[in-house]
Amino acid sequence: MSNPQKTEGEAAATTGKPAMRDSLIAAAFQLFLDRGYEQTTIDDIVGLAGVGRRSFFRYFPSKEDVVFPDHEQCLADMTAFLQDSADTDDPVLKVCDAARLVLRMYAENPTFSVQRYRLTRKVPGLRAYELSVVWRYERTLADYLRGRFAARKDGTLRADVVAAAVVAAHNHGLRSWLRANGQGDAEAEVDHALEYVRNAWPAKPQAQPAVEEEEDDVVVVIAKRSTPMWRVVRDVEASLRRD
Amino acid sequence: MSNPQKTEGEAAATTGKPAMRDSLIAAAFQLFLDRGYEQTTIDDIVGLAGVGRRSFFRYFPSKEDVVFPDHEQCLADMTAFLQDSADTDDPVLKVCDAARLVLRMYAENPTFSVQRYRLTRKVPGLRAYELSVVWRYERTLADYLRGRFAARKDGTLRADVVAAAVVAAHNHGLRSWLRANGQGDAEAEVDHALEYVRNAWPAKPQAQPAVEEEEDDVVVVIAKRSTPMWRVVRDVEASLRRD
Repeated sequence: MSNPQKTEGEAAATTGKPAMRDSLIAAAFQLFLDRGYEQTTIDDIVGLAGVGRRSFFRYFPSKEDVVFPDHEQCLADMTAFLQDSADTDDPVLKVCDAARLVLRMYAENPTFSVQRYRLTRKVPGLRAYELSVVWRYERTLADYLRGRFAARKDGTLRADVVAAAVVAAHNHGLRSWLRANGQGDAEAEVDHALEYVRNAWPAKPQAQPAVEEEEDDVVVVIAKRSTPMWRVVRDVEASLRRD
Repeated sequence: MSNPQKTEGEAAATTGKPAMRDSLIAAAFQLFLDRGYEQTTIDDIVGLAGVGRRSFFRYFPSKEDVVFPDHEQCLADMTAFLQDSADTDDPVLKVCDAARLVLRMYAENPTFSVQRYRLTRKVPGLRAYELSVVWRYERTLADYLRGRFAARKDGTLRADVVAAAVVAAHNHGLRSWLRANGQGDAEAEVDHALEYVRNAWPAKPQAQPAVEEEEDDVVVVIAKRSTPMWRVVRDVEASLRRD
């Protein structure tokens, strides 16, 4: 049950969690980086961490799970965050904020996140695992949106498409940051990407700046070209006078 | 090398392909449905198909691959379709058409597609396989869009988000049809879903119906409410007279 110094350090994924779990993660990543993921056995990991095999399986169902130790907690946090939502929240803004929870998990530990990103690119099994995690985030967002869009025509379609777009934008920003070795501002990258999605489905049909509208609002008159002039003028006058 | 009648029938995935490959697919699905996917071995499949083990591996790298026998060809078709694209093609329309190639593969054989859908829901390993295939379709569409949007600001972001939205819409339509046991019009379902994505990123900024414009076009006058009436009337008159 020792927790030797050599297994701690910058590869530890999280802080404030059980020390044994952290030391298993640290030992696993040290071995994955030194000798490769496929070449590392669970026995190697528990040997380096100085714990028994059963301890490993108390925290992780498989070797793959130790690579992504925080996604279950993040999925639970995301679900709670969305359940806590008010009916007045804009649904698209809300799922963008929910996606930012994932980013924050990555950004909390840049070194670990970048190491994992490189590992995941190299090992097809981990890539598949990651896709299944991404799918669960997407379904969590889509389920929330389906509830919020329940009364709308094509509500489930809208929910699925918006959730996919939010996840794609988030991952675009996240990957840019990971590819840059965790340098730069991850939040700014993802905010920019999510802004693009918000513009595709704006909160209001017309995104006119509200302040200007109060100061000097705009009248729009639409008329067929064949409309007699007197009728157009009457309509314009009526529009201008209406409060 | 025999190809017994009992392994043929409606479960055969494709026509016009090597008979041995088809009979392996048919045998595999008969066994998957009768005794379950996990309980079926490759030996069982080759036994029922009446071929040797080596013949199986000539066509399929693994048991999972026999469940999705046509995706590799469909991915190749999609890549060729997109490479064959002209620079004048609207990129979003083009990827929607590319996604329809996948739908057509499913719609060609409703019984097989519905059986596989049910199987995939039940077996986590197949679900993971399917996610990795969906990811490859999405990357194929995104890579094409990245090329087409190369000169645009945020071109790669736009490409990734549009590709994800197209795939989500396509899969929404496809799943509706599969859940309805392959009854109904799969193409109409998917067309409707893709239309939703096209409306989010329209080909032109204004999608006015061209025909109506010719018959009796419309004049739009926009004025601040504080504009003097004489100026509004002058602008309206000018608009109505302009050819």
